[in-house]
Amino acid sequence: MGEPMDKLLLALDYGGTKHTAAILRVGEQAWAAHSRVYSPHDPDASYDQATMRSMAHGLMMQVPGQLAAIGVSFGGPVDAQRGLVRLSHHVPGWEETPLRQMLESEFGVPVAVDNDANVAAFGEWRFGAGQGATSLLYVTVSTGIGGGWVLEGRVWSGADGMAGEIGHVVVNPGGMPCVCGQQGCLEAEACGPALAAKARDRLAADPATGPVLAGLASGNPDAVTGEMLARAAAAGDPLALAVLDEGAAMLGAGLGGAINLVNPQRVVLGGGVTKSGDRWWRIVRETARHHVLPQTRVEIIPAAMSDDAPLWGAAALAEKLLNR
Amino acid sequence: MGEPMDKLLLALDYGGTKHTAAILRVGEQAWAAHSRVYSPHDPDASYDQATMRSMAHGLMMQVPGQLAAIGVSFGGPVDAQRGLVRLSHHVPGWEETPLRQMLESEFGVPVAVDNDANVAAFGEWRFGAGQGATSLLYVTVSTGIGGGWVLEGRVWSGADGMAGEIGHVVVNPGGMPCVCGQQGCLEAEACGPALAAKARDRLAADPATGPVLAGLASGNPDAVTGEMLARAAAAGDPLALAVLDEGAAMLGAGLGGAINLVNPQRVVLGGGVTKSGDRWWRIVRETARHHVLPQTRVEIIPAAMSDDAPLWGAAALAEKLLNR
Repeated sequence: MGEPMDKLLLALDYGGTKHTAAILRVGEQAWAAHSRVYSPHDPDASYDQATMRSMAHGLMMQVPGQLAAIGVSFGGPVDAQRGLVRLSHHVPGWEETPLRQMLESEFGVPVAVDNDANVAAFGEWRFGAGQGATSLLYVTVSTGIGGGWVLEGRVWSGADGMAGEIGHVVVNPGGMPCVCGQQGCLEAEACGPALAAKARDRLAADPATGPVLAGLASGNPDAVTGEMLARAAAAGDPLALAVLDEGAAMLGAGLGGAINLVNPQRVVLGGGVTKSGDRWWRIVRETARHHVLPQTRVEIIPAAMSDDAPLWGAAALAEKLLNR
Repeated sequence: MGEPMDKLLLALDYGGTKHTAAILRVGEQAWAAHSRVYSPHDPDASYDQATMRSMAHGLMMQVPGQLAAIGVSFGGPVDAQRGLVRLSHHVPGWEETPLRQMLESEFGVPVAVDNDANVAAFGEWRFGAGQGATSLLYVTVSTGIGGGWVLEGRVWSGADGMAGEIGHVVVNPGGMPCVCGQQGCLEAEACGPALAAKARDRLAADPATGPVLAGLASGNPDAVTGEMLARAAAAGDPLALAVLDEGAAMLGAGLGGAINLVNPQRVVLGGGVTKSGDRWWRIVRETARHHVLPQTRVEIIPAAMSDDAPLWGAAALAEKLLNR
């Protein structure tokens, strides 16, 4: 392995707090080289671009071969058809950046760009838990809730590149306020920070209902984290279990609606909250099943790629450029 | 026009209470011949099939030319890939009927079969309000609520042929009971009969709140129909307006969720309830807009084909078979 004229794919993942680049030899399923840089406190788009450029060139020097295509995952809204980054919610200066064109000029190969949720969906479909599915909804349940579709082997981005925004589907009208301005969005009801906040409020109101959680937080409800919540639930703490159960039911309801609308063959769930154990998964699946018509199959399974799904998806995007 | 060797498309619409067949010359946008039969009180699948067969042969005798393809709309669940009718909710004996194969054997031309909501969506896309859209959600708001997707020029049926079931997405948890067994489904909150039932209940509870509606119903709340509701609302009756407004808001919320999930370029609404006037449309659009992220366009417009959308869609399915 490692012939000078190996065809290489470059995968780039522009995240909010870190950037990752990796090289894959065409036909292989393990990185030939991989590099990650964590962002400083105040990055801007120029910093992000320069960092990624130097990482990419550095990797290219380490791996002999010929670069054939580049796939890019970007942590923010993207116009995938035009290869245009619309903005970053975390880093200033990205507004309307023609990232595809910039990379094509610099590296002289075809480039595909899409947002991280879509790219992660594609990564799970090509290399992970979505393999073989004719249609896939991927949902990440983490500090937020996002999603992406792969329909018949292609990312479905929607007319404005906004498809997959399951986090902002209202599942509990009049419920928890959401960053998007609505109330009762799936994200506001079921993401990690939302569950921790709900646990803090209930513990403050009545500490006796969550003795294990209170102990883990040393009696200070404000100290409760998502990790403590998971540990308390695993130890049978009633308050922690109730909060996790409610989040799982909200997620199941949201997935049920999505399944009624699009009827994907498979739903793949990733993100930290999905590590909450069998009970959480059972409630998610049962609630989703309850919300869909009987003729519809409901297959909901864990993601396989963990945090690397966007990077693997970027490699899959690059690979797809070769097969056009 | 009417040359002996004109290429002809046969469109068949198997409805719950009526069957329609029509012939289109390839390239034209008006029926060459059209025929409809209303079902007796107790039809079965054999009756339906014999009726449609004789209508089709009768039409073929009236229009000179060569049959090239057949498109079929069926009012019930269909496995479109296999051309298989799963069942009819209205007519016994349709279980697992290989309708495509039966028609291909009888007529010796290619046949495509899909359920009425999907086919209506395709009809609006090809001939109606969806023309030119790269992606379309079609929703009919009538005695029930159903929907269909056209994505990049093709019907999206989903893994089990169940995509588009927006009527059974829950928009009001704990709300009105639905025929499907859930509570607060969009259909149970916003279809015509649901609105009439709600108006009847409120009028019975306090007739003074709906004086115009009470007058139209001659003081008998049980006599209220959807038509009376629409007329009372047009005359400014507060109860009727409130009921229609609430239904419009529920529909807007359901559409907002669907738009967040799939981001179609255009949403087309058909069915009797969509004739409820400007105020109803304004609330539907404003509520949908409120439920989606700001980067997402929201284009919601009336259907163009009225009740004939499935028949036109069947013709479009047949036409598509020629272009494979």
